[in-house]
Amino acid sequence: MTDKTYDNYVKEMQRIADLGYATALLNWDKEVNMPSKGAGIRTRQVATLSGLAHERFTGDSFSSIIKELSGRKNDFPQQQKRNIELTAKRHDRATKFSTEFVERNSRAVSEAYMAWLKAREANDYSVFKNALGNLIEIRKEEAEIIGYENHPYEAHLDQFEPGGTVPHLDELFKDVKEQLVKFVKELREKEQVEFEFLHHHYDKDKQWDFGIEVLKLMHYDFDAGRQDLSPHPFTTNFAPTDVRVTTRIHEDNFGSMTWSCIHEGGHALYEQGLPLDQYGLPVGSAVSLGIHESQSRLWENNVGRSLPFWKAHYGLAQKYFPENLGSKTAEQFYKAINKVEPSLIRVESDELNYHFHILIRYEIEKGLMEGTYSVEGLDQVWNAKYKEYLGVEVPDDKRGILQDIHWAYGSIGYFPTYSLGSFYAAQFFRQAEKDIPGLVGQIEEGNTSNLLTWLRENIHRHGSLYSADELCKRITGESLNFKYFMEYAKKKYEGIYG
Amino acid sequence: MTDKTYDNYVKEMQRIADLGYATALLNWDKEVNMPSKGAGIRTRQVATLSGLAHERFTGDSFSSIIKELSGRKNDFPQQQKRNIELTAKRHDRATKFSTEFVERNSRAVSEAYMAWLKAREANDYSVFKNALGNLIEIRKEEAEIIGYENHPYEAHLDQFEPGGTVPHLDELFKDVKEQLVKFVKELREKEQVEFEFLHHHYDKDKQWDFGIEVLKLMHYDFDAGRQDLSPHPFTTNFAPTDVRVTTRIHEDNFGSMTWSCIHEGGHALYEQGLPLDQYGLPVGSAVSLGIHESQSRLWENNVGRSLPFWKAHYGLAQKYFPENLGSKTAEQFYKAINKVEPSLIRVESDELNYHFHILIRYEIEKGLMEGTYSVEGLDQVWNAKYKEYLGVEVPDDKRGILQDIHWAYGSIGYFPTYSLGSFYAAQFFRQAEKDIPGLVGQIEEGNTSNLLTWLRENIHRHGSLYSADELCKRITGESLNFKYFMEYAKKKYEGIYG
Repeated sequence: MTDKTYDNYVKEMQRIADLGYATALLNWDKEVNMPSKGAGIRTRQVATLSGLAHERFTGDSFSSIIKELSGRKNDFPQQQKRNIELTAKRHDRATKFSTEFVERNSRAVSEAYMAWLKAREANDYSVFKNALGNLIEIRKEEAEIIGYENHPYEAHLDQFEPGGTVPHLDELFKDVKEQLVKFVKELREKEQVEFEFLHHHYDKDKQWDFGIEVLKLMHYDFDAGRQDLSPHPFTTNFAPTDVRVTTRIHEDNFGSMTWSCIHEGGHALYEQGLPLDQYGLPVGSAVSLGIHESQSRLWENNVGRSLPFWKAHYGLAQKYFPENLGSKTAEQFYKAINKVEPSLIRVESDELNYHFHILIRYEIEKGLMEGTYSVEGLDQVWNAKYKEYLGVEVPDDKRGILQDIHWAYGSIGYFPTYSLGSFYAAQFFRQAEKDIPGLVGQIEEGNTSNLLTWLRENIHRHGSLYSADELCKRITGESLNFKYFMEYAKKKYEGIYG
Repeated sequence: MTDKTYDNYVKEMQRIADLGYATALLNWDKEVNMPSKGAGIRTRQVATLSGLAHERFTGDSFSSIIKELSGRKNDFPQQQKRNIELTAKRHDRATKFSTEFVERNSRAVSEAYMAWLKAREANDYSVFKNALGNLIEIRKEEAEIIGYENHPYEAHLDQFEPGGTVPHLDELFKDVKEQLVKFVKELREKEQVEFEFLHHHYDKDKQWDFGIEVLKLMHYDFDAGRQDLSPHPFTTNFAPTDVRVTTRIHEDNFGSMTWSCIHEGGHALYEQGLPLDQYGLPVGSAVSLGIHESQSRLWENNVGRSLPFWKAHYGLAQKYFPENLGSKTAEQFYKAINKVEPSLIRVESDELNYHFHILIRYEIEKGLMEGTYSVEGLDQVWNAKYKEYLGVEVPDDKRGILQDIHWAYGSIGYFPTYSLGSFYAAQFFRQAEKDIPGLVGQIEEGNTSNLLTWLRENIHRHGSLYSADELCKRITGESLNFKYFMEYAKKKYEGIYG
């Protein structure tokens, strides 16, 4: 249906999106290309464009459009109605904060970030403590401004995982504690796998070329994207027609580049598959970070760390690195890349222990928001939890509570989406196996086209048309269920560890 | 002095600059990085940002700031007064056009561009003729809207070369015709130099590395810039702290990469030397395209095609390309890179014949604007002028009137700035030789630091504080004078051709 106000809404949203994607390019360029002296002015350019986008989005003109459309949203067909609803929600949130609050928050984030840098340098949590405390108070205030159903944590979670609730996360992480902690402990008692050959010398240029080949194998579209190097791998997009990934290369580590490539490639396939005709509109973008992460993790773990995938492609890896891999079989390689071992650092974790890192952050964030934890002595809380869930002693704050940047940015409610992603991935992959006859055999033959088509059909093309939960139900017939991840983990790791 | 309105003016100008530089990044990225499928959405992103910048610049809020400041501009010190004047001039121009005119112009440009592409394809000027005619009519209309002193051409020239006049250009190009045409004809009768070795195979990767070294020799600051490949070399800037150059490499041509590097490097040194504290303001940007081109040409020709420069650096070139240059002396090389030969294509021309290409475009553009030429039969006019000034027969339209894209973009008044650049360069370099004792000896020793310091002091740091003519008088004691270019040309080429 055509509707003049809706058309104006689309036009304005797309202009705001143009500003947003230009900002994304400024940021991508900062990580990938920008000469060092460019940093100062770049910061102000980003701030200006972000400010202009916010100004337009919250200004009177656009506000009245949203108000009018919201009042008669039920007259619109599903897709348009969904756009109106999601925009109204974002708009409502964006207009709730006073300039005083926004500025105070911005200062607190800057201070926390600086304090975090200093604390890392000094390897001393106490340097970060007060700034973090200040930021947590602001997050509590923010939660009250935004509102929530069960728990102030939800006000923040909802930004990253719309519709996510604390009872739901509590239930999931209860399962993690009861089932996964126990399972991983059992694995630790088995004979350990050989993995040292993954840490011999892997030439930088060869790794680069290998990474490109792996992305091509996944059908990442290089006519609608590119790969570059950056300190931390990430995916960014300026439209489904331009979705870029970055990676990093460590010459003493085969895995660092390889799985970052596959992981970011999974994110990028999602973005490349979003509906272009919904450019700039909610339905044209990803539904939640949990679903986004399900796409990266499905490719990284369910496909990229599977034996069938490497039965197909191990020959290629051997061709690139004959000196390191020539004498190892695909099975030895498969075991090595799936070594399970508790580690201090989240980003270096295997795919099972990983969830304990998230569990710890979730428990701490929730406790800070409800007041059962305070920033005082939080390093001790951290260390005790690492001892309890991972069985490791944290030797210092740098390898402990100071390791991640997220809290220094004031991000609360972000970490759980990583675990949600893995759990969704297991459930989706299981369904894909049901829906695509012979899927594992296809992967073993190097064919992931049908899997990608399935993801495109069931997930990518919908954008945000459905909520994460609706999407999961449509695809698998039920809400997210941890048991599918547990089934996947047991089958895989019992196979590896006997 | 502090002044609240002036402060607001600065803030708003800098916000508009942020939008402009973000647009520049979108465009740089399009040439350097963008995957092919990204083109469509990128076009709209550029259009939106340009539109927003225009909207802010011409909107009521900023207009009243400019009006107020203009009314009391004489109360401000020189630099601020100059910013107000130049902004008011730009603002006046920007607000003169109706939306109807802007849209009609935009359509005519699109049509002319498409027609030019088709005409190139068909190698047939008649396919382009009507669209060009339409565009010329719009340019005439535009000139009347803008206003001019002596000739409608000036309304357009002034955009690129503020203060440039038709009587002045007529005088310059009269000298070109009387003095340079004759001189080049004489050179053609001399024994020709050997140059074929510049067209042997020059490895792509080695050329790339050599180009980077050459930029470093010039003191191009790689912490405030970078070099990339693009189909057509260009310089772009997002602030003096981030000025990027691009080049292209042809393996059968040593010069194509080398002098494009030096040329763009010259542009970039200017931009890197502009006053950062005037970011976003007229005084923080280049004074005119002629002066900009003087910087690129001074490095490209007066330095980069000089014997002293290659006495210092020919060894480096030989080290990179021993198979091609190992058996040639610096003197042979110097003669080869300065070979004078009339050619059909402007961008492939030597530094003397080049000005005949510009002369022809100037005469035609001026004639079209005043009505002494029409688009009917313009290809014949073109061919006759090439015969007259360069002594060459134009075999077809692709190598004739259709070779440049500028008219298809509707650019009138742009070409002369190329010649102005060379003429300014000769006059500036002569002055630098006077001001810096032993400059040529320094260059021969590989030292261009004092030259750069001189350019920074006399030209770069001033930005647009002075007009091009004022700047030239301040530096050399007189206005632009063609005789210095002629002196330079005679001394150099009589040396080469004996």
